[in-house]
Amino acid sequence: MKALVYHGPGQKSLDERPVPTLVAATDAVVRVTRTTICGTDLHILKGDVPSCEPGRVLGHEGVGIVEQVGVAVAAFKPGDRVLISCISSCGKCDACRRGMYSHCATGGWILGNRIDGTQAEYVRIPHADTSLYPIPPGVAEEALVMLSDILPTGFECGVLNGRVQPGSTVAIVGAGPIGLAALLTAQFYAPAQIIMIDRDKHRLEVARTFGASACVDIVQTEPVAEVLRLTDGAGVDCAVEAVGVPSTFELCESIIAAGGTIANVGVHGVKADLHLETLWDRNITITTRLVDTVSTPMLLKTVRSGRLDPQRLITHHFTLDHVLEAYATFSNAADTNALKVLIEVS
Amino acid sequence: MKALVYHGPGQKSLDERPVPTLVAATDAVVRVTRTTICGTDLHILKGDVPSCEPGRVLGHEGVGIVEQVGVAVAAFKPGDRVLISCISSCGKCDACRRGMYSHCATGGWILGNRIDGTQAEYVRIPHADTSLYPIPPGVAEEALVMLSDILPTGFECGVLNGRVQPGSTVAIVGAGPIGLAALLTAQFYAPAQIIMIDRDKHRLEVARTFGASACVDIVQTEPVAEVLRLTDGAGVDCAVEAVGVPSTFELCESIIAAGGTIANVGVHGVKADLHLETLWDRNITITTRLVDTVSTPMLLKTVRSGRLDPQRLITHHFTLDHVLEAYATFSNAADTNALKVLIEVS
Repeated sequence: MKALVYHGPGQKSLDERPVPTLVAATDAVVRVTRTTICGTDLHILKGDVPSCEPGRVLGHEGVGIVEQVGVAVAAFKPGDRVLISCISSCGKCDACRRGMYSHCATGGWILGNRIDGTQAEYVRIPHADTSLYPIPPGVAEEALVMLSDILPTGFECGVLNGRVQPGSTVAIVGAGPIGLAALLTAQFYAPAQIIMIDRDKHRLEVARTFGASACVDIVQTEPVAEVLRLTDGAGVDCAVEAVGVPSTFELCESIIAAGGTIANVGVHGVKADLHLETLWDRNITITTRLVDTVSTPMLLKTVRSGRLDPQRLITHHFTLDHVLEAYATFSNAADTNALKVLIEVS
Repeated sequence: MKALVYHGPGQKSLDERPVPTLVAATDAVVRVTRTTICGTDLHILKGDVPSCEPGRVLGHEGVGIVEQVGVAVAAFKPGDRVLISCISSCGKCDACRRGMYSHCATGGWILGNRIDGTQAEYVRIPHADTSLYPIPPGVAEEALVMLSDILPTGFECGVLNGRVQPGSTVAIVGAGPIGLAALLTAQFYAPAQIIMIDRDKHRLEVARTFGASACVDIVQTEPVAEVLRLTDGAGVDCAVEAVGVPSTFELCESIIAAGGTIANVGVHGVKADLHLETLWDRNITITTRLVDTVSTPMLLKTVRSGRLDPQRLITHHFTLDHVLEAYATFSNAADTNALKVLIEVS
């Protein structure tokens, strides 16, 4: 089969690889029909994710058709159309029993990281019963690729952790796909304001069409003063960090209201400064989270009902044969205006 | 009247000052019978609290007898015995309506900071109806001085914010009065383990008698390895920072389990390093809080029922005439073994 393989920092290629086979009784093998590229894949290619070793097939998002299941798989059978979760989970360990699937003792984020992933014609999914979701009828499969990771991540790590409430003032720092996913799903809770902050004019324009109440272009405007102006000097109840560098996290520290929550979504490679000398008495909360995908069934319902339209995040289409071009387009978003790039596999 | 007055960094004296009078209709003037010294008073004397200006009467803890009330005070009358909260709150502003009394628009921590405090024969209490508590019958007043600040602080900022639950593993970094207050009140929730961490042998011995399940003396033992050993490699569900320096906060970052909460209680003068490069995917929560004293009525009930004995925190007694000696004893705890020093005023 064809597969996009990571060969160490800065190196990848579309290679011929053997089709995966069942290893455990709880495994499924899925024929991938559509996949996409995540910002995290770019982190891997920068060498930021040491758990991902050269030789790994990348990708942790996708939809497909079940090809084969192990004898212990009860919920799926060959031919079933499925959504692949970026998080594999056994459903049985202490972490899973708490709903913290991201820290499953034998799962978590392993696809396209510790085991081969979805940017290939076939993928082996461990713990299939609790790591795949049936695709409901009447839903565009293309849209569902956005539910493997990006929408639950924006929602769980940003909106739920950020405790967005009716009437909340929200700032989302970073209007990339994850920030936009947080923007779309924050609106479930009717916040009073959603202020998007970025340095990319195009992404801010998209954010405006996605429902942002204000956009702050940090190239043109000093963001702290602007957010304070927009919130009558109070700062925001919820600041979502959707970039993953110290300066954007520290910006969240500067705009958070007393009693507010900073929800970190970004993947960070270095430490940030935590200004406890100003924050110790501000009654704030800071959260970090690797998505648990506990919200996937709920998000599927919002897509099915038309309340959420994930397709809006897809800007480009490629076939697997052109996956290298897809990477170039996705990683050069400032020029290509790419948000999510969809890869049609079969 | 006699009053302990701050005269700028490193300078204080017991001075003669006029007895305070009512300023607003919601004020009370209270004759102080007992007060104490807080670690925060020492911070002020170091010059760490710029809002506290020279000339200020220090102190934000105490019990006393109502001397005079403004016309708008409905809940108290002269002669009532009262507990003075360290937090003054109007009960009417947006912050108060959310129960975040610490950020009251016209109150918060103002006593002994922005207005004259309780280390004096008399003190003016703004917003008396919502900043004083009646002393229940049958309770030792001495014990209640611990309910002005230290016990609600340890409980709200440490135990409640730290989300201590039955079966939790808890580490409390700092076995001073605040850490010990967290230790006492954490036991309301039946945690599985409470590990106390300090560098003071005496305080760790006290912690043991107060119910700590393990004590880690960081002079003798590398605390990260020891906490991991004590928690089967998982780290703790809740880490309470009760010191207020970067190294103790960063220790909390190193011992927190996936899904755990770091509850900051310490007053910090400088920033700390937040190691997002290791914490971004650990599903942790970090909280800061200035005590709201929302739990004071509940804590009063636990004292009255005998479930909590705050008197255990009092190690020394002085009269107001000897308040300078009380400061010397309290600030030199390593030699004096002082926890809380009680000052009898009248």
